[in-house]
Parts: sequence; C-alpha cells; structure tokens
Amino acid sequence: MDPIRIAVVGLGKIARDQHLPAIRGNPAFSLAATVSPDDPGPVGVPHLARLEDLLNKGPAVDAVALCTPPQVRYGLAAMALKRGVHVFLEKPPGATLSEVAALRDRAAKVDATLFAAWHSRFAAGVAPARAWLSDRKVERVSVTWREDVRVWHPGQAWIWEPGGLGVFDPGINALSIITHILPRPVFLKTATLSIPENRAAPIAADLQFCDTAGADIHMDLDWRQTGPQSWDIEVETDAGTLKLSSGGAVLTLPTGTEHADDLEYAGLYARFANLIRGGRSDVDIDPLRLVADAFLRGRRETVAAFHD
Amino acid sequence: MDPIRIAVVGLGKIARDQHLPAIRGNPAFSLAATVSPDDPGPVGVPHLARLEDLLNKGPAVDAVALCTPPQVRYGLAAMALKRGVHVFLEKPPGATLSEVAALRDRAAKVDATLFAAWHSRFAAGVAPARAWLSDRKVERVSVTWREDVRVWHPGQAWIWEPGGLGVFDPGINALSIITHILPRPVFLKTATLSIPENRAAPIAADLQFCDTAGADIHMDLDWRQTGPQSWDIEVETDAGTLKLSSGGAVLTLPTGTEHADDLEYAGLYARFANLIRGGRSDVDIDPLRLVADAFLRGRRETVAAFHD
Repeated sequence: MDPIRIAVVGLGKIARDQHLPAIRGNPAFSLAATVSPDDPGPVGVPHLARLEDLLNKGPAVDAVALCTPPQVRYGLAAMALKRGVHVFLEKPPGATLSEVAALRDRAAKVDATLFAAWHSRFAAGVAPARAWLSDRKVERVSVTWREDVRVWHPGQAWIWEPGGLGVFDPGINALSIITHILPRPVFLKTATLSIPENRAAPIAADLQFCDTAGADIHMDLDWRQTGPQSWDIEVETDAGTLKLSSGGAVLTLPTGTEHADDLEYAGLYARFANLIRGGRSDVDIDPLRLVADAFLRGRRETVAAFHD
Repeated sequence: MDPIRIAVVGLGKIARDQHLPAIRGNPAFSLAATVSPDDPGPVGVPHLARLEDLLNKGPAVDAVALCTPPQVRYGLAAMALKRGVHVFLEKPPGATLSEVAALRDRAAKVDATLFAAWHSRFAAGVAPARAWLSDRKVERVSVTWREDVRVWHPGQAWIWEPGGLGVFDPGINALSIITHILPRPVFLKTATLSIPENRAAPIAADLQFCDTAGADIHMDLDWRQTGPQSWDIEVETDAGTLKLSSGGAVLTLPTGTEHADDLEYAGLYARFANLIRGGRSDVDIDPLRLVADAFLRGRRETVAAFHD
C-alpha cells in the first residue's frame, strides 16, 4: 500500500515538537511538504507559503494536517476538502461549533476523511481509565489543570484573541479526557471566567459540571501557575478513587499505579491512517461544546492585566 | 382519543399571552394545572407552587410546557422526563448546549417526547419562504432585529444574567428562521457583543455569518430601539429578493406580498400533539449553537449601563 502523502500546514511549536516526528515515525505516511508564511529553515521537503499554492502546484498530497491557530482553520480545511484531500484538525477543531459542523457535512459529501484530533485522549492512562470506569458508579470528579502560560505558550498572541480560547486551550485537553472516560454525558452547570483587563480570553476558570446521574464535576483551570504544574483528574467511585496525572500519562487505580511512555501523537497518526484507509471520519465536538457552554453561561470577572 | 393533559410551568408574560390561549384553543390538549411559585390569580385549573408537588400529588398530567427562565429549565425537564412526562421547552431550550443534549438522550431512553420549540419558525411567512428558497442561489442575507427591551422584557432581571442571553433572546428567533429557510448550513465568522457595564449579557450585537457556498449573512441585533421596531430578514438570490418582515409574519417575494394571521403558538401546539401521538421528539439546537458560537468567538465591548 502506498504511503499517504501528507503536508503539515502551520509550523508552530506543536507542529515541530509533535507532528513532524510522529509523521516521520509512521510508515503509513510520507511527509510531502510543509506550508507556512515564514521560511521554516531546513525540513528536508518542499516548502510553500500558502496551502493554495500547494494544492495548485504540488507536490501532490493525499492529506493535510492543520496546525494553524483555530481562527483560520475553517478556510484551509474547506479548501482541502474541496479537492478531496483528507484533513487532520489539531485541537480545537475550529473557532466555532457551527464551522466544525459545516466541515463535517462537507467531508461527508466529498468522501474525504475529517479527523478532529484530541491528543490527550491518546495519553497512556486514558484507555485503561475508560475501561475501568465503564461499569462504575461515579460519585465525584475533580479536575486541576494549572500551568504556566509563559512556559507553554510564549508570545502566542492568537491564543488571547476571540476564538483563541485562553486557558481553555489546555483546559479542553482535560475536557476531551473526561468526556471520553466518564460513563455518562456531562453538562455545564455554572462557570466563572477570569479575564485579564488587557485580553479577550480567560486566564483562569472555575467550572461546575454534572453528569446525568447528578455526580458533581469540578474543574479548576489556571494559567498563572509557576513552579510545579498540575494536570490531574480524580474520579471518586463506588469502587474507590481513580487518578489520572501528568495529563493522562500516569494512571493510579486502587490496585496500583501504571506509568507508560507518551505516545499521544503516534496514536493520533495511527488513528488518522486507519480512518483514511477505512473511508471514515471522526469529528467529536463534545469538548468544544462544553467550552462554548462556559462562554455562553459563564459569569465573567476582570482580573489583573497579563503581559508576556 | 383522550386529550393530552398538560400543565404550564412558569407563568410569566409568554405563558399568559401565548401558551394558555394556544392550549385552550387546541382540543388535542386539556389544561390540567398551572405551576409557579407566585399565586397566578384565577386561571380556572388547580395551581401548584412547584413541579415536584404536581408530579407527586397530581392532578395527573401527560405533558408539561416549561416557560420558566432557561437557567432552571434543565432540572425541571429532567424531573418530568424521569416520570415519562412529555416536555415542551420554550425557547431557548436551555442555558447550555450540553444540557439540551443530555435531555435529548434522556427523552430517548424513557420514550417521552421532547420538543424544543422555536415559535418564529411557525410565523406565517416562514414555510413559504423556505419553499421558495429551496432551489435558489443565495447571494446575500441581511437581518435587522431592533426592538425596545423596556417594552418587551420589562424588569426581567434573569435575561441579563449569565445564561439569559440578553439581546440574543429575541435574536435567536431570527436565527431560528434563517437556519430553517436557508438551503445551506450557516456558520459564524465574526461577532461583536456590546455589554452594558452593569450587566452580564449583551444589549446589542453585530454578527457576520456565512453559508457553506460563501454567501455573506449580516445580522444587526439591538435592544435600544425606540420608536418603530424592526424584525426583518432580506435574502438576495439569483431570482430576486425575498423579504420577511414583522418577525416572519409578512412575506414579500418578487411576485408580491403575502400577509397572514399570527398562528405561531397554535402551530407549535399542533406540532407538539403530533410528536406525542407519533412517539417522536424534535430537538434542533442549531439556533442556540450559533448563539454559543457568538459568545465563544465574539469580541466584547463595554457600553453604557442599562437601567430598567
């Protein structure tokens, strides 16, 4: 079977740290080109400034991975799907729910694969956590996602703009995990969003969710954490407490702790190849829907200005 | 066939002006009770303070119409569905998308009917507008929804609270029409929300949408309109311009103008009866999804304080 010729569009931190190595490590893919307005320096494959140039002039591609900021992703994805090119969407899959729904319709019409990727769902502890919780009664969930934005998003102005999500950019990773591992649907009850006085997006958020059996789910998101970073989920059940830490990499059950290597992006690209070979799409908008609900329903408070 | 015994829950302006007359005018229903914390004065049927009292003590009901503010609607709907009681949700169907999705799952499990009602879709001009547009090429859409909040929502504090939607409370009526009449999916591009400095919800909004063929859709929502009120939608097509005015009641096509009587709530209750008799639900969240997208993606600006 010929490898899937893929181009990576948008060459920021996540593309360089994760996408290019994952593609190079998977023989189902061959990296055909990179696309970004700036010169990326030597990557070893043809480079183009714009996706339009790639699609018009080649090299030929079967798929693109879109790693640009979400605000411009719809136009790029629609352009690729129009040519029947498969599309991998970095998270969040778009700047709005309605544009992701429109892309899903479009992909179905042209028989191309659309994959809304949630990398944290491929963290090592997540699949076994989901299996363990599937027949448990969930009593309470506590999510703590506290990190230092200056370390993880240095100088990324787009993340503070409308559509850039602010602290929900990491927070949506936690949401992608809990919507995947909890056995019942989750919905938002109340939210408080803390917005720096000089920015459009929240730097912190306190969220109360609930599942359909009434279990409380509390989420504490904060981008002002210096020192130790926390990406932890605790689920209290009738059979004891499950804990996922390090963003899902480390799973602790009442029976002990399991560590495993980080294979998130390797898992994502294996999934993308399977979807393409099988002629299917995978577009789950639940995590982004919960974020939209927090913006819709949440109370806002203004906090101190944030300067990079 | 026995009439469907129904209780109206929440006896504010819309319940008195629309729901009670529509139920009394439809022989498929019999009004069994009213529910609200305040004494409603003489309605001619038993009155209870809380839905829980009604469901525990009777009189027996087959259905409830929830006309409370959206912030408390999920709990009431879940309680009714748990007893297998059919639920009519006034618009908006909830304070968040995720809670409406959870209700839809719950209704399916208990075989009860859940109806997310969008009354403006039952305005006289809407069905013929949809039919006329179905094979037209849409070039541009302009929506102007300008009304005086002091006239239409006097002293309604909940509408300014998080989850109360502000100017999107009427604006969602326009969204319910355009998502119904336009032949292609619509998504949000940009939004500016104008929030009074003493309130949590917008008093005005300027929105740019787009359909999947690229047609521009502009929406101007404003609650500060005194004098003549505007609820107008203009759709420019390859076959001329369609205009819906008076909130959808009056349709103007290139061939002339049609006026018709307002039968919105009569239409809603006829539909609700059909859904119940057919064992089906109808829960379209597209209008609320576009509002959530505007809160998610929109830029906010602070404007002058609003006092009732």
